[in-house]
Amino acid sequence: MITSTGNQQMKHIIQLQKKSKTRCEERVFVVEGPRMALEAPGDWVEKMYVSEGFLQEPDWHEKLSEYAYEVVSDSVMNAISDTKTPQGILAVVRMPSYTLEELLKGKYQENMQEAGNAGMLQKAPHLLVLESIQDPGNLGTMVRTGEGAGVSGIIMDKTTVDLFNPKTIRATMGSLYRVPFFITEDLPGTIQELKKRKISVYAAHLGGRKSYDEPDYTKGTAFLIGNEGNGLSDEIAGLADEYIRIPMEGKVESLNAAIAATLLMYEVNRQRR
Amino acid sequence: MITSTGNQQMKHIIQLQKKSKTRCEERVFVVEGPRMALEAPGDWVEKMYVSEGFLQEPDWHEKLSEYAYEVVSDSVMNAISDTKTPQGILAVVRMPSYTLEELLKGKYQENMQEAGNAGMLQKAPHLLVLESIQDPGNLGTMVRTGEGAGVSGIIMDKTTVDLFNPKTIRATMGSLYRVPFFITEDLPGTIQELKKRKISVYAAHLGGRKSYDEPDYTKGTAFLIGNEGNGLSDEIAGLADEYIRIPMEGKVESLNAAIAATLLMYEVNRQRR
Repeated sequence: MITSTGNQQMKHIIQLQKKSKTRCEERVFVVEGPRMALEAPGDWVEKMYVSEGFLQEPDWHEKLSEYAYEVVSDSVMNAISDTKTPQGILAVVRMPSYTLEELLKGKYQENMQEAGNAGMLQKAPHLLVLESIQDPGNLGTMVRTGEGAGVSGIIMDKTTVDLFNPKTIRATMGSLYRVPFFITEDLPGTIQELKKRKISVYAAHLGGRKSYDEPDYTKGTAFLIGNEGNGLSDEIAGLADEYIRIPMEGKVESLNAAIAATLLMYEVNRQRR
Repeated sequence: MITSTGNQQMKHIIQLQKKSKTRCEERVFVVEGPRMALEAPGDWVEKMYVSEGFLQEPDWHEKLSEYAYEVVSDSVMNAISDTKTPQGILAVVRMPSYTLEELLKGKYQENMQEAGNAGMLQKAPHLLVLESIQDPGNLGTMVRTGEGAGVSGIIMDKTTVDLFNPKTIRATMGSLYRVPFFITEDLPGTIQELKKRKISVYAAHLGGRKSYDEPDYTKGTAFLIGNEGNGLSDEIAGLADEYIRIPMEGKVESLNAAIAATLLMYEVNRQRR
């Protein structure tokens, strides 16, 4: 049993929790809680740690027995956890990686079929494209809602908050394991690539004339969603085929980015259902 | 100029920021930032404080001149602010209060007309009913999105997080000033009252057979939204006229509470547009 936070492995986990750079260099991230840890695809898990207290919980014994794990003292678990009330189990998981091609070809559908859940037949790509999203909770919520709405993948630029931030991971509620993503160094170039593939690119924009529920989304569709404070940059918005707007009553000037993305993605879901 | 956090007024503001009980007893709350402070209805503002630094920003001088305000040092502003990067202006605002009757009669429409924005004609009540929502950001986002979707009001029980929590206030982005709300001591009784008024009560529930976009929401409509972790209690869900479900692809078991509320409220908006 590991009883000291001075242990090299424990120091390493604290680094992984705190530093996006360390995660990025080593291509691993940390998940917490029985659901997130024990739902990770088996071959993605590099290390599993459980606290003494967690071992007392019979509910998880069967599932846990499928893994090699190390036991740490409750106080060490408190130290390496990112949450105030640790759930007693934590795993170091290998980062998945997808190509743009995989998102367009429906890697998501393959993941679902492997998981025994074919989902809705995705005839055409359905993509969310994020520019400089800053709130980890917003990003995680978009991944979770994206899976629910049946997106084929999420594209984000380098200035979007780290997808493997502990707060983002928690907000995905496991969807991180299933929704393909692509982090691009060249967002304008990637959007041009989508347009070449005949995917219609829509910008949620206050200057939109059409309401978001007017276009036909049964064909290949991508939505551009901008930063929480500033919206889309002119450069990125300018690449859209069409501006659409979400009607707003009262004196509301904009909606939260994850809320706007939800309405757009579920309108696609509604049209394709 | 106030230069000490030992000042009685400053101590009082710190109390108001931290303690729901103090806010509740005195019927005031604290808002921060130029938008929230200077957009508050004039007769709701009890006190306004600006930092030395803020006084250097000419953008706000004209608007600020409409108020009596006190100047505090930058370090005092840091101490009384709830945020890491204070925006230099903070106001103590009187809590609004509405009766259930006002929500049902369309107090929201009156607020809007007074504000010179008639909004969509609300022929029938459109209510969000919250049971034990725990996340301040979720609650604030529901108020903001609710205004956008045109709700006539938001009803919440006593176990829902404080609407005047600084995090909730920030997430409302000003909608708190315009969306009527009713905090009930007796949620089942309030729901029964809605049903007596011929308002159809829908529960977003995994056991729902109808998709959320099937019912006719042009008549009086109320949606029950439950706690983030546990959903609606059986008692409250049991009071609904109908269970509805939001279709979910993949392995998603539920959506975030604010996300679910968004889809329901905007479906009403779509049908009434």
